[in-house]
Amino acid sequence: MPQLGFLHGRAWAALLGQLRRPPGAVCIGAVHSHSQGTRDFSPQQMVVREKILDMVISCFKRHGAKRLDTPAFELKEMLTERYGEDSGLIYDLKDQGGELLSLRYDLTVPFARYLAMNKVKKMKRYHVGKVWRRESPTIAQGRYREFCQCDFDIAGHFDPMIPDAECLKIMCEILSGLQLGDFLIKVNDRRILDGIFAVCGVPESKFHAICSSVDKLDKMSWKDVRHEMVAKKGLAPEVADRIGDYVQCHGGVSLVEHMFQDPELCQNKQALEGLGDLKLLFDYLTLFGIAEKVSFDLSLARGLDYYTGVIYEAVLLQTPAQAEEETLNVGSVAAGGRYDGLVGMFDPRGHKVPCVGLSIGVERIFSIVEQRMKTFGQKIRTIETQVFVATPQKNFLRERLKLIAELWDAGIKAELMYKNNPKLLTQLHYCEDMAIPLVVIIGEQELKEGFIKLRSVASREEVAIKRENLVAEVQRRLS
Amino acid sequence: MPQLGFLHGRAWAALLGQLRRPPGAVCIGAVHSHSQGTRDFSPQQMVVREKILDMVISCFKRHGAKRLDTPAFELKEMLTERYGEDSGLIYDLKDQGGELLSLRYDLTVPFARYLAMNKVKKMKRYHVGKVWRRESPTIAQGRYREFCQCDFDIAGHFDPMIPDAECLKIMCEILSGLQLGDFLIKVNDRRILDGIFAVCGVPESKFHAICSSVDKLDKMSWKDVRHEMVAKKGLAPEVADRIGDYVQCHGGVSLVEHMFQDPELCQNKQALEGLGDLKLLFDYLTLFGIAEKVSFDLSLARGLDYYTGVIYEAVLLQTPAQAEEETLNVGSVAAGGRYDGLVGMFDPRGHKVPCVGLSIGVERIFSIVEQRMKTFGQKIRTIETQVFVATPQKNFLRERLKLIAELWDAGIKAELMYKNNPKLLTQLHYCEDMAIPLVVIIGEQELKEGFIKLRSVASREEVAIKRENLVAEVQRRLS
Repeated sequence: MPQLGFLHGRAWAALLGQLRRPPGAVCIGAVHSHSQGTRDFSPQQMVVREKILDMVISCFKRHGAKRLDTPAFELKEMLTERYGEDSGLIYDLKDQGGELLSLRYDLTVPFARYLAMNKVKKMKRYHVGKVWRRESPTIAQGRYREFCQCDFDIAGHFDPMIPDAECLKIMCEILSGLQLGDFLIKVNDRRILDGIFAVCGVPESKFHAICSSVDKLDKMSWKDVRHEMVAKKGLAPEVADRIGDYVQCHGGVSLVEHMFQDPELCQNKQALEGLGDLKLLFDYLTLFGIAEKVSFDLSLARGLDYYTGVIYEAVLLQTPAQAEEETLNVGSVAAGGRYDGLVGMFDPRGHKVPCVGLSIGVERIFSIVEQRMKTFGQKIRTIETQVFVATPQKNFLRERLKLIAELWDAGIKAELMYKNNPKLLTQLHYCEDMAIPLVVIIGEQELKEGFIKLRSVASREEVAIKRENLVAEVQRRLS
Repeated sequence: MPQLGFLHGRAWAALLGQLRRPPGAVCIGAVHSHSQGTRDFSPQQMVVREKILDMVISCFKRHGAKRLDTPAFELKEMLTERYGEDSGLIYDLKDQGGELLSLRYDLTVPFARYLAMNKVKKMKRYHVGKVWRRESPTIAQGRYREFCQCDFDIAGHFDPMIPDAECLKIMCEILSGLQLGDFLIKVNDRRILDGIFAVCGVPESKFHAICSSVDKLDKMSWKDVRHEMVAKKGLAPEVADRIGDYVQCHGGVSLVEHMFQDPELCQNKQALEGLGDLKLLFDYLTLFGIAEKVSFDLSLARGLDYYTGVIYEAVLLQTPAQAEEETLNVGSVAAGGRYDGLVGMFDPRGHKVPCVGLSIGVERIFSIVEQRMKTFGQKIRTIETQVFVATPQKNFLRERLKLIAELWDAGIKAELMYKNNPKLLTQLHYCEDMAIPLVVIIGEQELKEGFIKLRSVASREEVAIKRENLVAEVQRRLS
């Protein structure tokens, strides 16, 4: 499986591997921008971000996805009532005349709007872009008000669980490729949850609200979630207790089989459909060789309203040593599910286009990688310059300019100092600092004789070459 | 000079060259998004956009720039009073509690804010990102309310005109590389304009307002601009006429020399500095081999308030044949200038960091390329899939899934149909439609014997290969 290429072998392993973080190591954290919960990305950060994004995108392309882009803001009405309890986190634009607009909250709703608007019935697309949420910025968890999402979705009428299994395969490929350590994908199905709520005696009008409570089980204890269900959402205590018996179960495909034996649940049509699909899903995951990475977890609920079937969420597993020292709680790093009803909501005639997809939590992945790089003092090259044009002579700017233009015109990445009379040592130091491999040195004497010096920064060796052979020689050395 | 690689030789030349557009050819235009002045980008459009962006970015990297990113919104106070008459076009976010925010209007002000905030005294950076302006969307001109900008800037104290000349070189490299046809870069200097205003008798308090009027000379006649100066901005008619004598001049370096002879202007310190710098600039442009692409044009003013020295703007030159038929008036495709005071405005102690930069009008370039592609019916591949896994047999999904996972795990881009029993013809048609080069065909008989068929879509040739050699054989054929 392809892996990140900008750090090789041991450097990358040291960075991302299972090594213990030394005590007292520096933590990321400082917000660099004036607007709360957002931040600037320095060139060092951009190099890491781009490498990670490249890897995610190349996986999406490996699975045949096309790229799509949508505007940063949508009509406000497009976004309202799509996100359940989280709708209050949507950023609205000021009414300056004209339409009422909101910044997009995710990339899924714009995708569904695109499909409906363009009457697209079948599409496999990816979308990399920023989304905005008015969350209280808890930077320690890698949560920001502006963050990047990488989404892959498959829309269309297909045979059950084939695209769903591919989504889980993609999550595994990306998380393995990034070498973030061991991970687990929790899987559940909204129909099974709804079936459980029904057999436990939850009124149908409270399904969404109770689902939201269950969703908090990754952050809160069952005791607290139960309290929320009873005290805030008005559920009878015995109903909550029955739910508790279910949602604390997790296991492999054997749990699916076990649930099929549940005398009450197997009377519920929805739950039966969900269990049947999960069984099929585990079959396909076994063929893909990833079944052992996936756990059927009845506590998984996913907050968003639009899911209708299978749902999943990948979490990184911490070794005990890490758990002891780790201050960066990253939570889920990828998630998704099936949403068969969303496109129909945007279609004037309600035509449905079933969809399933996933979103990679790249922002959290960046935080982990960044933290590890700081811990291990890894240096990153932020420019790609191949050749530096230097001179030991005064008043030699015109010669340098002529020469560097030749290099640029030949497609060679080249820089010079923006000074009339820079010191040679300053120029050479810059090359060493920036790891620029080659220096072209021009002086009066050599130039008169039609020669030029080419210096290797690493070995400090210098050779004289003919002026007219410069571009060819530089290209030869760089290839 | 590197050129766009996704269309080769004649196809690209036909697309972007000087060919006449056939009468009645299709025009771009339909807005695909519900929010006015914004749009979705289809996979076809995304392929073109990404190729163009890749080319722009690779030029920025060739000149040693680092990448930076800033948030989509800034504190409102950061943006106010930076853009002169255009400040009304800034999108504000609704006050939902907390800070007052605005969507960024360009990438220059956030860059200056970044430099000041991080006390960076020297930096060569590029930034590719979206910006938002509440303009009335005149789609025919390729103007949108959300658009992408590609900026390159050099910050720091350097010897005069060296970074400025590099910015013009970059504009030339990008516009030549994109093969958009002939172009011209207009150059002027704010200090020369201010000198002219002073010499003509404009009160200093009106310099900015009169500068804004001059800026409209590319869209309005001198008569109309003069009327605006006199009727709206309260300039004496004879002052306006004196300005008119100046701003209608344009030429090469000889015009610079000629202006030096102007008895009044050469008494003005600002104008003299500007003229001296322009002379030096033309000297450097000659060394870069691009002086003939650059015209000293006294009508160029650039609307934004923050420019302090040299300013420039690249326009595409239409051949008479094109001008006759062209409906897409693209105007300027790249622009920039020197802004030595902006960083100081964000620094609490007012420390100045001189800057010069450029912005590529990629949105307009996309429009031109898109229009030409439609005109010439150019087809673009939107996926990169290399292998399709097919079967002529029913109930063969499990075998297909096992096999495709092997391909994915080997980094091969592969797809299959999400159906239990797809028709072979449907599968092969998809491969031809999507230009997928290879098909792996698995059937019961071959599999029993340990073989598999590999089909070349172009030649329709099929060969039997050993099942265990599949990945190696596919990799061999794709390399």
